[in-house]
Amino acid sequence: VGANSVGSSKEAPDARLEAELRRTIRDVPDFPKPGILFKDITPVLLDPALTARVVQAMAAPFAGAGITHVMAIESRGFIFGGPVALALGAGFVPVRKFGKLPHKRVSETYALEYGTDCLEVHADALNDASRVLVVDDVLATGGTAAATCRLGERLGARIEGVSVLLDLSFLSWKQTLGGRRAHSLVSF
Amino acid sequence: VGANSVGSSKEAPDARLEAELRRTIRDVPDFPKPGILFKDITPVLLDPALTARVVQAMAAPFAGAGITHVMAIESRGFIFGGPVALALGAGFVPVRKFGKLPHKRVSETYALEYGTDCLEVHADALNDASRVLVVDDVLATGGTAAATCRLGERLGARIEGVSVLLDLSFLSWKQTLGGRRAHSLVSF
Repeated sequence: VGANSVGSSKEAPDARLEAELRRTIRDVPDFPKPGILFKDITPVLLDPALTARVVQAMAAPFAGAGITHVMAIESRGFIFGGPVALALGAGFVPVRKFGKLPHKRVSETYALEYGTDCLEVHADALNDASRVLVVDDVLATGGTAAATCRLGERLGARIEGVSVLLDLSFLSWKQTLGGRRAHSLVSF
Repeated sequence: VGANSVGSSKEAPDARLEAELRRTIRDVPDFPKPGILFKDITPVLLDPALTARVVQAMAAPFAGAGITHVMAIESRGFIFGGPVALALGAGFVPVRKFGKLPHKRVSETYALEYGTDCLEVHADALNDASRVLVVDDVLATGGTAAATCRLGERLGARIEGVSVLLDLSFLSWKQTLGGRRAHSLVSF
């Protein structure tokens, strides 16, 4: 399998990048709780040449989509969101946990395994002329990515897609994101 | 005044960039609590050309310092840390709040106005061959930046300096950082 893509267009898989990511991403058992095998991407970040390729590969499928803004999801999404926004010449819009953003904002509450969480974006960051790429490191349940898409849509923006480093294909993100276009460099 | 620099070398001030940042950074009164005037950098991030200049200006003073790693401080430091690391060809080392990093880590507790906080780094991210630039968005009390420097030093790394977008010159960061080199693009 190559790069994982859902939606209307096909991307050429970058099999070499995918193989290198599989070698580099580290399994951490029992984190954050017993029975969970955590995919630790920090070894990728230690390699600047690999990180540069990841950023290019996360941005490239959306280079022709007229992206005006990247919505990046706190906190690990910020790591890739900054460079992807610069690669696309797009503005960077931080999507943060409740209470962190200082100016007027809109909020979206979404379900977790137990309880709920809340994400926020500045109300004046996007409007109906905005074409948005959502960036995070990992797609798992898709709950935070879908909430981020809804935040953008509530401000009138058009969500062109979601771009991540890796996705957990056994989890429910495809259902949660519905028909939205999603792009991942490696699936586990 | 131009770019603010403390330490052994003088940087040429970029007065135009500084003026543009003063125009773009937004004051939010009474955030996060009454009486605090918050400097909101998110309008800078909405402008990709300005953000690209900020990243270059944050990296440039350290381009000849042989930086091997950028330690970026969660969460807003991640936004600039990613692009600055790529600009310097350096690895990216996330410094995170307690309990967020999955692998073996070292911790540093530091004082806040009320109580304490704790930052962590992966123990295998740095060693005595590492030359580190610490990146965050704002220098205020300097407490998180100093704790990050100590984390790096405990792993044997040499801290070459601290680079931020803005500093609050009326606060105590100069004392807190001691003789460490710090670079800021605009002071308030």
